[in-house]
Amino acid sequence: MATRCIITGVPGVGKTTVITGALKKLEETGVHYANISFGSFMYETALREGLVQDRDQMRLLAKDDQKALQRKAAEAIAAIDGNVLVDTHASVKTPKGYLAGLPEWVLEALMPDLFVLIETDEDQILGRRLGDPTRVRDMDSYRALASHQSFNRAIAAAYAMKTGCTVAMVTNADHLLEKAVDDLAALLR
Amino acid sequence: MATRCIITGVPGVGKTTVITGALKKLEETGVHYANISFGSFMYETALREGLVQDRDQMRLLAKDDQKALQRKAAEAIAAIDGNVLVDTHASVKTPKGYLAGLPEWVLEALMPDLFVLIETDEDQILGRRLGDPTRVRDMDSYRALASHQSFNRAIAAAYAMKTGCTVAMVTNADHLLEKAVDDLAALLR
Amino acid sequence: MATRCIITGVPGVGKTTVITGALKKLEETGVHYANISFGSFMYETALREGLVQDRDQMRLLAKDDQKALQRKAAEAIAAIDGNVLVDTHASVKTPKGYLAGLPEWVLEALMPDLFVLIETDEDQILGRRLGDPTRVRDMDSYRALASHQSFNRAIAAAYAMKTGCTVAMVTNADHLLEKAVDDLAALLR
Repeated sequence: MATRCIITGVPGVGKTTVITGALKKLEETGVHYANISFGSFMYETALREGLVQDRDQMRLLAKDDQKALQRKAAEAIAAIDGNVLVDTHASVKTPKGYLAGLPEWVLEALMPDLFVLIETDEDQILGRRLGDPTRVRDMDSYRALASHQSFNRAIAAAYAMKTGCTVAMVTNADHLLEKAVDDLAALLR
Repeated sequence: MATRCIITGVPGVGKTTVITGALKKLEETGVHYANISFGSFMYETALREGLVQDRDQMRLLAKDDQKALQRKAAEAIAAIDGNVLVDTHASVKTPKGYLAGLPEWVLEALMPDLFVLIETDEDQILGRRLGDPTRVRDMDSYRALASHQSFNRAIAAAYAMKTGCTVAMVTNADHLLEKAVDDLAALLR
Repeated sequence: MATRCIITGVPGVGKTTVITGALKKLEETGVHYANISFGSFMYETALREGLVQDRDQMRLLAKDDQKALQRKAAEAIAAIDGNVLVDTHASVKTPKGYLAGLPEWVLEALMPDLFVLIETDEDQILGRRLGDPTRVRDMDSYRALASHQSFNRAIAAAYAMKTGCTVAMVTNADHLLEKAVDDLAALLR
């Protein structure tokens, strides 16, 4: 039976590295997952529908168009045969506050089996962001980051209520990447 | 485009003071918000419908009548043109536990854009309540108050999942009221 | 008016002891509750429907059958006259993560009035599990247990949003069982 997994983590937690490692490990044992970035998938859907010409126009979409687009993208992902891993955010930090990565209309279309939060100690995330010049826009204080990770856990609980998916936390701690990769692979196996 | 904002905070956090300051600031720059207390709005709706004769009767309404009244009030607010700020509670502490300020049927009618939690350190809230003789009914321990503020964050996450609204925290710390007012005004601008 | 109460707590918190004490106390004052274990009730429903022959087959049910069974059991409980106490889990810890004890389709059928979390300090729960040889399968670290209790609070907030039930925490602390029993009885009275 195919698994539909949603995987999330705050910027700088190392989500992509953990996903890449886990999917490689799974391929070696014959388990395949389609690896989909929800943001890119939405953008491609919008391009195909003629809603936008470039990525910058995505944030200018009217609220109702954005909702319709989210739902359409979620339905297209749900129609994919086989295991699917959807890479997105539990919540996005915006100037107007935290925004649900998976509002109700997306969850109803996707109905995931498994929701994963990649987490680690806030101090470690801050350290990783400082070392990554592309993360300048994501500079947070320790407390702001703790607040974000905590909000993500709370909203994951709401997702679990809505869909019946399980919610698993994978810790990607400094020097223990292999452990995080193994933990994620075990969840996806 | 008009904004529908829900604003909440535990008793004693200084919600009204922050709202008054922010709305005054916004008026000076030509931005207007209708400022609605959800409780009073419900009461006026109940009076008009002949459901109650005075405010004390509100708590004696049968559960289904209360739900219908909540929904009707939410629909009336959603029908208002222009920016609306709805002053209510994320959750209410009752003898039977925490009660959602915005259960699903209210959210579906209101569909807010923005949900604000006015917060501050529990110690500061306790200090403010001690200095306010009208708050005697709200005397809590530090831990009870921390538990309430934490429950409010969790239920705000569920509201975000349900409606797609953003959830923002505004800190109203001692001696920093102006900062809280500016932060709220920036969210509402 | 009858009360429908859902009562939860992590393994080892002493849920059954607190329930037994509170229901005995209530009986003495003429207040009666039907005491239903949601898991056993589901199993009996499955037996009656011919879906399973023994309890081990319960976990082998297809996902859709399990959902249909959950909903059917919830509907049957909702049809019971008088006060009902449903003993279940806020969330269950599984190898694939936390699973909602009361997903949306169960809540919609049950529509509880009151949701109770029996809690205590993680250290005390660890001590109780160590002293109970039947709890070997539930051995957790302090942090894993704190994470579980915190997830339970978050998902309880989502339940409150969905149903309008109140959410109450009852602390079952070492040496203070009588206090926990009294607190639960007061909620159920």
